[in-house]
Amino acid sequence: MAERIGWIGLGIMGKPMAANLLRAGYELTVHSRSRGPVEELTQMGARAADSPREVADGSEVIITMLPDSPDVSQAVAGENGVLEGAPSGSLLIDMSTISPVVARELAEAARGRGVGMLDAPVSGGDVGARQATLSIMAGGSAEDFARAEPIFKVLGKTITHVGSSGAGQVVKACNQIVVALTIEAVSEALVLGSKAGVDPEVIIKVLSGGMASNRVMEMRGRNFLEHDFTPGFKVDLHHKDLGIALAAGGEYGVSLPVTAIVGQMLHALRTRGMGAQDHSALLTLIEDWAQHTVGGRD
Amino acid sequence: MAERIGWIGLGIMGKPMAANLLRAGYELTVHSRSRGPVEELTQMGARAADSPREVADGSEVIITMLPDSPDVSQAVAGENGVLEGAPSGSLLIDMSTISPVVARELAEAARGRGVGMLDAPVSGGDVGARQATLSIMAGGSAEDFARAEPIFKVLGKTITHVGSSGAGQVVKACNQIVVALTIEAVSEALVLGSKAGVDPEVIIKVLSGGMASNRVMEMRGRNFLEHDFTPGFKVDLHHKDLGIALAAGGEYGVSLPVTAIVGQMLHALRTRGMGAQDHSALLTLIEDWAQHTVGGRD
Repeated sequence: MAERIGWIGLGIMGKPMAANLLRAGYELTVHSRSRGPVEELTQMGARAADSPREVADGSEVIITMLPDSPDVSQAVAGENGVLEGAPSGSLLIDMSTISPVVARELAEAARGRGVGMLDAPVSGGDVGARQATLSIMAGGSAEDFARAEPIFKVLGKTITHVGSSGAGQVVKACNQIVVALTIEAVSEALVLGSKAGVDPEVIIKVLSGGMASNRVMEMRGRNFLEHDFTPGFKVDLHHKDLGIALAAGGEYGVSLPVTAIVGQMLHALRTRGMGAQDHSALLTLIEDWAQHTVGGRD
Repeated sequence: MAERIGWIGLGIMGKPMAANLLRAGYELTVHSRSRGPVEELTQMGARAADSPREVADGSEVIITMLPDSPDVSQAVAGENGVLEGAPSGSLLIDMSTISPVVARELAEAARGRGVGMLDAPVSGGDVGARQATLSIMAGGSAEDFARAEPIFKVLGKTITHVGSSGAGQVVKACNQIVVALTIEAVSEALVLGSKAGVDPEVIIKVLSGGMASNRVMEMRGRNFLEHDFTPGFKVDLHHKDLGIALAAGGEYGVSLPVTAIVGQMLHALRTRGMGAQDHSALLTLIEDWAQHTVGGRD
């Protein structure tokens, strides 16, 4: 009874997610621009297809997991794209993190072909993808969400229907704003505190006991203290995500002054060749301005 | 065996704290610029004194709880101040939130008179003061901290020795940075999200399940959603506290770009006559720029 699934995008997130569906017994057709992951998946039992159109052709549910809005637009609405092959009555689920505006346009285009669409971005990173503990925030109709739910339960743990088309991407943008600004908040506090002579570990401990407590400090505390910026979540990706938030602000008429600044700071990190480091490396910009290293190595 | 305590400052925080010490059986001499609270405390058994000097004269431990750095400087090192009356071997504890630089200067001056000093600012607000659940972060020598600990245990719940003189104020400044910037982060997310068509309550729920989770959202979520800006913690005080953080940054050579902006935003709220509202009212600035009210009342 399980639906036949087509999967497009086998990167650091998509490959382990698709593998989890295969292990759960789903029949899978896959497509990716790079050959290696396709071969891995076919060895696990997937069928390979040459284009998004071909993926969609024989599938009831088509899932995309791609880097950015243009990639998804191309794969869905471009030449040899999903919408050329998807049968009427099929369901398209985009799990990439893209612009809510693009998500709404694509959902509209899909509807015009008799194809349902959910935007269902995730958080939880590659670890969450492998362990199937992702948070999934989905926008679209209640019917489409109910149809996708068994699949989501194979891929993640916290699954929420957050509203109509585009709402998933909106909530993801909100999430990325709060995470980035919290990293900046903790960075300013730690550089001030440690340069003013207080042990940064004590600062984190005391702040964690009160209203300043947050998950970033809990999960990235050691990264800050030990200057270990192994990702985690890359500066490049968070920069892209704040770009989406700011563009959405532009579209919906919302000014985001601090998001804009922190976006510029992430841009500065990329310029310095730190795009592949963890987003907690924002700390190093504040350190640099203060000529001081948290942890006392100045 | 309990030490005789002198208490200076009977405002919204100081009065309930002093009352808790009286209830715990401490012998208390009090001084305040306003008459009413002094009478309340004397009816509970305290002795009244006419100046900080007179308070200090017969006390072994002197505690100040005053609005800002100049008030504490005046009460401690000014004419008829604590240091004119405090016996050698006595201990001065400043529980106000003031500049760490001033705290260090006053500790130095006290040391010159043979008087120990701790800076021990608190968090937890007037509710914490009444219920004796304050967090106390103390800077000073280990000996002075040990001497003060029985008193701290009457006033608060989480008591931490965070370092040498000034360290308590430094950690408090760090705390206020993180809280203010988190409020701003949540405000930008909620205004973007709700103007882009998503229920702000759903946004808070989903964000609370992941890396964007924070105590501000947990404790002030309803304030944001219902536009209830009854303090809580007043804009005026948080503005003052970010001023302290920025001045400390100036003194110790730390640039705090986002703290500076959020400080300016709190300033704008004061200019609009909202200084006495809860700091979560930062939301209204972002709403105003977007011509949109979270909760859908636009």
